[in-house]
Amino acid sequence: MDNNPYNTDLDRNPANHQPLTPLTFLERAASVFPDHTAMVHGPLRRSYAEFYARSRQLASALAQQGIGRGDTVSALLANTPAMLECHYGVPMCGGVLHSVNTRLDAAVIAFQLDHARSKIVIVDSEFMPLMQEALALAQVSPLVIQYDDAEYQGARAASDAQDYDAFVATGDADFGWLMPEDEWDAISINYTSGTTGDPKGVVSHHRGAYLLAQGNALTTSMAKHAVYLWTLPMFHCNGWCFPWTLSAIIGTHVCLRQVRAAPIWDALADEGVTHLCGAPIVMSLMISAPADEKRTLERTVQFFTAAAPPPEKLLADMRTAGFDVTHLYGLTETYGPSVVNDWHQGWSDLPAAEQAALKSRQGVRYLPLEGLDVMDPETMQPVPRDGKTMGEVMFRGNVVMKGYFRNPKATEEAFAGGWFHSGDLGVRYPDGYIQLKDRSKDVIISGGENISSIEVEEALYRHPAVGIVAVVAMPHEKWGETPCAFVELVAGQDVDADALRAWCKERLAPYKVPGKIVFAAIPRTSTGKIQKFVLRDQAREIAAGVGALTSA
Amino acid sequence: MDNNPYNTDLDRNPANHQPLTPLTFLERAASVFPDHTAMVHGPLRRSYAEFYARSRQLASALAQQGIGRGDTVSALLANTPAMLECHYGVPMCGGVLHSVNTRLDAAVIAFQLDHARSKIVIVDSEFMPLMQEALALAQVSPLVIQYDDAEYQGARAASDAQDYDAFVATGDADFGWLMPEDEWDAISINYTSGTTGDPKGVVSHHRGAYLLAQGNALTTSMAKHAVYLWTLPMFHCNGWCFPWTLSAIIGTHVCLRQVRAAPIWDALADEGVTHLCGAPIVMSLMISAPADEKRTLERTVQFFTAAAPPPEKLLADMRTAGFDVTHLYGLTETYGPSVVNDWHQGWSDLPAAEQAALKSRQGVRYLPLEGLDVMDPETMQPVPRDGKTMGEVMFRGNVVMKGYFRNPKATEEAFAGGWFHSGDLGVRYPDGYIQLKDRSKDVIISGGENISSIEVEEALYRHPAVGIVAVVAMPHEKWGETPCAFVELVAGQDVDADALRAWCKERLAPYKVPGKIVFAAIPRTSTGKIQKFVLRDQAREIAAGVGALTSA
Repeated sequence: MDNNPYNTDLDRNPANHQPLTPLTFLERAASVFPDHTAMVHGPLRRSYAEFYARSRQLASALAQQGIGRGDTVSALLANTPAMLECHYGVPMCGGVLHSVNTRLDAAVIAFQLDHARSKIVIVDSEFMPLMQEALALAQVSPLVIQYDDAEYQGARAASDAQDYDAFVATGDADFGWLMPEDEWDAISINYTSGTTGDPKGVVSHHRGAYLLAQGNALTTSMAKHAVYLWTLPMFHCNGWCFPWTLSAIIGTHVCLRQVRAAPIWDALADEGVTHLCGAPIVMSLMISAPADEKRTLERTVQFFTAAAPPPEKLLADMRTAGFDVTHLYGLTETYGPSVVNDWHQGWSDLPAAEQAALKSRQGVRYLPLEGLDVMDPETMQPVPRDGKTMGEVMFRGNVVMKGYFRNPKATEEAFAGGWFHSGDLGVRYPDGYIQLKDRSKDVIISGGENISSIEVEEALYRHPAVGIVAVVAMPHEKWGETPCAFVELVAGQDVDADALRAWCKERLAPYKVPGKIVFAAIPRTSTGKIQKFVLRDQAREIAAGVGALTSA
Repeated sequence: MDNNPYNTDLDRNPANHQPLTPLTFLERAASVFPDHTAMVHGPLRRSYAEFYARSRQLASALAQQGIGRGDTVSALLANTPAMLECHYGVPMCGGVLHSVNTRLDAAVIAFQLDHARSKIVIVDSEFMPLMQEALALAQVSPLVIQYDDAEYQGARAASDAQDYDAFVATGDADFGWLMPEDEWDAISINYTSGTTGDPKGVVSHHRGAYLLAQGNALTTSMAKHAVYLWTLPMFHCNGWCFPWTLSAIIGTHVCLRQVRAAPIWDALADEGVTHLCGAPIVMSLMISAPADEKRTLERTVQFFTAAAPPPEKLLADMRTAGFDVTHLYGLTETYGPSVVNDWHQGWSDLPAAEQAALKSRQGVRYLPLEGLDVMDPETMQPVPRDGKTMGEVMFRGNVVMKGYFRNPKATEEAFAGGWFHSGDLGVRYPDGYIQLKDRSKDVIISGGENISSIEVEEALYRHPAVGIVAVVAMPHEKWGETPCAFVELVAGQDVDADALRAWCKERLAPYKVPGKIVFAAIPRTSTGKIQKFVLRDQAREIAAGVGALTSA
């Protein structure tokens, strides 16, 4: 018997316990601010009443097709109203949303559809040929719904798929949508693009989505009626949960099919955008736009960046242009951002270089993340807070995934010792802020010494002619591995490999200076992440003497 | 077997599931912003590092005295640093915080100490005589700790109680504080001062405290580093969870022993206060202060008000003085405010009278409250949304109490039909906003017709000479009951009962016009709530012809 008197006759019941789910945010927004603009897409404007009604119609239409609890609905969509509706309509009938990266190749998509047991796919006209190719390879035969976005200017492939709007119209706008039976129920699955092995399906639950969606607003002080521009792909970790955050604060989504400078600047100025997210490449794109594409902003805009530390010059340019940049970090396994470079007021008075150094750190735990540490994965002991000792970044808390779908072995490994093992290597400073130094697999081991590729990249980034740089391991007869740097120059600037190596020698220990510097376009994913596995292959080819690139 | 594949091999574990508790907010604040000012009290300033260390010391000292999970620690304290520390230190050792209203009489306090099985009491010097009187009546014999606040100017009673600071000093600042075993564990108990029967002990849990604390910030857009002035008593529903909210946004508490105009204005101006809470009486106090006590404010200050709808003139005066007033509503059973008059941008363009009418409505559900409705308690059917049909206000969701302590019958009644029955009567408007019309027990039944005491009060409030008014039922030979109005006049204004009755006749149905109007000081609780049960007794005495008041 429990001796705690506060556990007697004080049980959960429907009056005092409901599953946490972000679906209730939309219900509230539509009920309280039905006429507030929920989304803008070109000339289209939809209110919260319409957003909610259409999401319920979608849920109803899906339910009529037999979609229920635990059934997967896949979406191959751009940042459009349909994608926002899927983030509510799919879970509203108990379904699990599987957002697909639109830059993947057909074979990977086919793998995902089969692995997730997809029952319905909702596909933008632009990506219908890709989906058709994937479906030809897949075992499953989901029902195909085609979304014909008015903002899409390209060709339409022949397809006998049902039209999305017609499909939604078959649903009931008063549909009695389903709360999750338990807040632990899955709300989405997102596949991570691992460099080796099959993609892993990261399962998120309603509880975590609710908490991270709120955490976005709380951690970054997003106020009521914020206006959010969709430069971050929604297929990327459910748009870091921002499709749900905006309903919590009754904000406005500004959709965007393509990340180009002119429409970004126009939206910032014309729609009163207050917040947007993206990798540093999005900032570069905006800052380097021709003057006639840029617009003057009437207010400071919040830019949340992740994927790579923002370089000093870019930070300065962004500040001048009217942006306040916050550095976030997280993984698909942590619902998107769960670490924030929480800025101290006094830091803004420091010299620009010191500010950039502070800003390059990933930071501290988000409010809804209970634990963040850098540990030795063997001993599970935290590393000293010296800013030097490397360990693996570990997460613990309510915004860590449910696990990997149909992959108990990977799940077990990921959660070994009661912490989520991120695979990212980093250090912790005396003030508790963490900084990434590398992916486990990105460490370069030269003569038995670990070299952080990020440290080498940072040294090169400080050179004024260097635009983008990526450093990977290249096989080396004597040392085992040596750093190989891939460099994109700033337009109009020039520098040769010897000069860059001399630059590095002044700033790095000799064994960290790149053995090879390659000037070439650097391959990136759709989210702006540099594809180091491609570069690693190139470095191996160069080492083997079969490189066809312009190298020095 | 569960057919949902998303429920297989995807279980909770320490890496992805932790109990929700506001204690983690303080841990984070102290870790990330250790030097930020957590609290101000006269000349005293404590940082988050100190706040966290002292809370852990308190928890450690309590644990050394045998306080563990489910043990009650009572606090009879003003709005002081000790009271803030109790909100963390008590639950950090597994204890349950019992905050005691300092205006109660000794017998009621003795009842609470016995009913809650209090093991330790922490008492401000000012209230030690009251506690000594209560302990003489109580069955329990808790350890007594005395808090000697430097800001307290009055006499100290003789006591052999241990000094609070010395007690805290016996604790370990590195104490390994306890997370709740389950987020459903109790964090606090607060007794409601019912008008009949024994007080009921409202048990709150960590989950609800976490969610409402965040809800305060989210619903009202409180930004990082807000500065909060303690005009609301912390013993009142744990200060509406603001002791926890402020840690979530790394804000600053400005403590205040007494609600007087001069120190309020000084704190607003000198400490950069951004937010404060209180009943309309607090606003009146501020607005009616002598000119030399008022200060000019450099920013708009957010004032959250509850307990009674803010009158139109007060709203206008507050706006002129630089305040933005938000009307909140809730009960101890809902962790404090769980309903907000969520303001629409366009409403600010309406005439002042219309704005005041809109502002007088209690509003809509807080983000973490899943359900709010006005229902017929017999049928549990929602009333029509016509702004007229009365029903009982019902709550459902994660910020509804765990139940009443050691009172399964009251708990069962309160949760009948899967909703929490508030006992408040109200209407719902077409836009979904609710408005209170009365407490169930405050309805006046005259000739079989229900009369809303609030409606009669509102008519009287519109008269320029009326300062405060309270209407209750008075027994009546013919009609059963008739409204009896108690009126406090505005200083320097005069009006007689006949003139007020004539005023009412122009505005109310004849049967709603008060049969009696009494000019007298109106008794209030420490939180500014009018004590209608006292007035009801007076009205009965007047009807029986034994009234000794100045009446007309």
